[in-house]
Amino acid sequence: MLTRSEAEALDAADPLAPLRAEFRLPEDVVYLDGNSLGALPAATPGRLDEVLWTEWGHDLITSWNRHGWIELPLRIGERIASLVGAAPGQVVVADSISVNLFKLLAAAVEARPGRGVVLAVDGEFPTDLYVAEGLCRLLGGRAELRSVRPEALAGSLDQRVAVVTLSHVDFRSGEVRDMAGLTEHAHHAGALVLWDLAHSAGVLEVELDRCAVDLAVGCGYKYLCGGPGAPAFLYVAGRHQELLANPLSGWMGHAEPFRFEPAYRPASGVARFLSGTPPILSLAALEVGVETVARAGPSALAAKARALTSAFVALVDHVPLELGLRLASPREPARRGGQVTLAHEHGYAVVQALIARGVIGDFREPGLIRFGFAPLTTRFVDVWDAATLLEEVLVTRSWDRPEHRRRARVT
Amino acid sequence: MLTRSEAEALDAADPLAPLRAEFRLPEDVVYLDGNSLGALPAATPGRLDEVLWTEWGHDLITSWNRHGWIELPLRIGERIASLVGAAPGQVVVADSISVNLFKLLAAAVEARPGRGVVLAVDGEFPTDLYVAEGLCRLLGGRAELRSVRPEALAGSLDQRVAVVTLSHVDFRSGEVRDMAGLTEHAHHAGALVLWDLAHSAGVLEVELDRCAVDLAVGCGYKYLCGGPGAPAFLYVAGRHQELLANPLSGWMGHAEPFRFEPAYRPASGVARFLSGTPPILSLAALEVGVETVARAGPSALAAKARALTSAFVALVDHVPLELGLRLASPREPARRGGQVTLAHEHGYAVVQALIARGVIGDFREPGLIRFGFAPLTTRFVDVWDAATLLEEVLVTRSWDRPEHRRRARVT
Repeated sequence: MLTRSEAEALDAADPLAPLRAEFRLPEDVVYLDGNSLGALPAATPGRLDEVLWTEWGHDLITSWNRHGWIELPLRIGERIASLVGAAPGQVVVADSISVNLFKLLAAAVEARPGRGVVLAVDGEFPTDLYVAEGLCRLLGGRAELRSVRPEALAGSLDQRVAVVTLSHVDFRSGEVRDMAGLTEHAHHAGALVLWDLAHSAGVLEVELDRCAVDLAVGCGYKYLCGGPGAPAFLYVAGRHQELLANPLSGWMGHAEPFRFEPAYRPASGVARFLSGTPPILSLAALEVGVETVARAGPSALAAKARALTSAFVALVDHVPLELGLRLASPREPARRGGQVTLAHEHGYAVVQALIARGVIGDFREPGLIRFGFAPLTTRFVDVWDAATLLEEVLVTRSWDRPEHRRRARVT
Repeated sequence: MLTRSEAEALDAADPLAPLRAEFRLPEDVVYLDGNSLGALPAATPGRLDEVLWTEWGHDLITSWNRHGWIELPLRIGERIASLVGAAPGQVVVADSISVNLFKLLAAAVEARPGRGVVLAVDGEFPTDLYVAEGLCRLLGGRAELRSVRPEALAGSLDQRVAVVTLSHVDFRSGEVRDMAGLTEHAHHAGALVLWDLAHSAGVLEVELDRCAVDLAVGCGYKYLCGGPGAPAFLYVAGRHQELLANPLSGWMGHAEPFRFEPAYRPASGVARFLSGTPPILSLAALEVGVETVARAGPSALAAKARALTSAFVALVDHVPLELGLRLASPREPARRGGQVTLAHEHGYAVVQALIARGVIGDFREPGLIRFGFAPLTTRFVDVWDAATLLEEVLVTRSWDRPEHRRRARVT
């Protein structure tokens, strides 16, 4: 069983350890919620100061050109592309995941005439289902959301399926889905596939091009450390770009937005999936996050994530069974994302008791405790401390206090 | 004719003059483009520092509750409501204008079965037309965009019109449309009306409730001084809220987003028009802008804007006719927004020559020079200086130089 000094030795040998200094983290906490909100890069406040005082405050409207604001969505998109296995020209930053999902699902349904089913799996991240539901309702009889058990997915791929929408990593269990295999299955059935990379971009070796993925969306505020509610990104494979139409055809996706033409004429390439004017302050912060994460590269990030989650699982395996803890993530490291989920009857109270001890994870129904191991900001000693404090909370039953059991409105 | 010392006297007597100190403006320019990008409030960088270091950097994920991030869209919406004549509970901040237009136009078409026409006017701000076009294409035969000359609008209101979409202030001419009258006309024909307040919120006395407006969208980065690409807002009259469906039904518009229910259940009230996770850094900046502008109140803002544009028009009236300048905005102050548009054959080059002299306006085809007079940051001496330098540029023909006539990619 790993000791704390062995954990320290692992940190000392960790090639990514120096990059942790590129982030600002509170000293009094073990932060294991980077899968919900990534940490603050040290360079972000300075960059924001520059955007505020120089670009906005002094250069004002001229900054759209002078400081390249207009290029940010594509420029950041290219950096993200390097993290998700996409050749240039296929990723752009825009809107939120929800809005991007709508754009791409609508485009996919329109591109598959005669097929009206949007296929998803039960337990998918809710907003993905809500957005598909909203699109289908808007399209009336032309489209229908069908959600099936994950194990029934392959068998549900028939000629009515226009597009399959799937999370690469399940937000509850942290399980990684087989991107290559499921994409191939869908293609055999004539369907397109849209992957949601919210829990994989910046922590796994995502291989969009190699897996022949059609469409993808992803999140800027988790492992990419772009800040709270950072703009999202989307990927459209080059072969589809000129065939797909963005239903949210705003001026930023126009071929020449500043000609103010009365009719919409889509930009060539992935830029046509832009819609309205993007929020520059949030984009500037996202760029710093992405640049910082991209310095590590996807294979080093994935290797570190596997090592962290494996160490945590090994430690948790030593917690006596009668304390009621159960591993709810896959045991095989390659089948896990950057998170480990544990189940406990009093999961909510356990999370609260841990937060009171400075270990920040989060809770999801039913009874699931999620710990995210963002590879750039999590040390092996954090893993050790978290596992040790978790066992202490369970052994002492310190979760069993009114202040921990009371539910907050938002978690 | 106004002299510079008379302009100084007007500034000294201006009740809004002290609020100018609440903004940071470059000392070497006369900034008349607040209708494209509002100036930086002095309090914004400090607020962003707090959000970055304390809220994101230290309190991390807990800030959604602890620092009220989750409430920002509704909280800022209420402050904007006070600027656009809306009773509480009808305005929320979300996404971009383009995305909000899509949501509300789609909801309006769906709410008017048997009517498929989205009616607009020629010369409308392009993204508004593009978005309507994209929606109609997505809906197939169920909806159709019809664009008519502004003077033909009332006559085009028939029983096929589901919704009329109109800018309150024309982005080219600065002309104010008759919100009360046109809304009443549309209602008589059984249509809903959506007003785009991009060029009126924060500079005119907008009276959404009094005019019985159904729907509206507006911009955070112009007169509300929320920063480049600041999130937009939308208004849904209380009487429609429970009847309209948001087609971009993301989790933030769910009745209980953190219950992670599989099926969408819209929040009650205007919150159902939220979609994905909002960009907090940009929202925090928008809040400062809105708070600063709201301190003046709409009637004082509108009075100052009228006084500024009137002073400018009076000065420009003295420019000799043979210099080729023509007023392209309404002459009657009450029919103008916060901008004055002048036409000149070499408008683009004139704008560039003015920028070289430190007067920042902007250019729109065909040959239109736009000057925005944001009431909190523009002084009467700025008006005087701009008019004087404009005349100088024309008299000396200093616009007629290669460096001014060469078009930049973006303006």
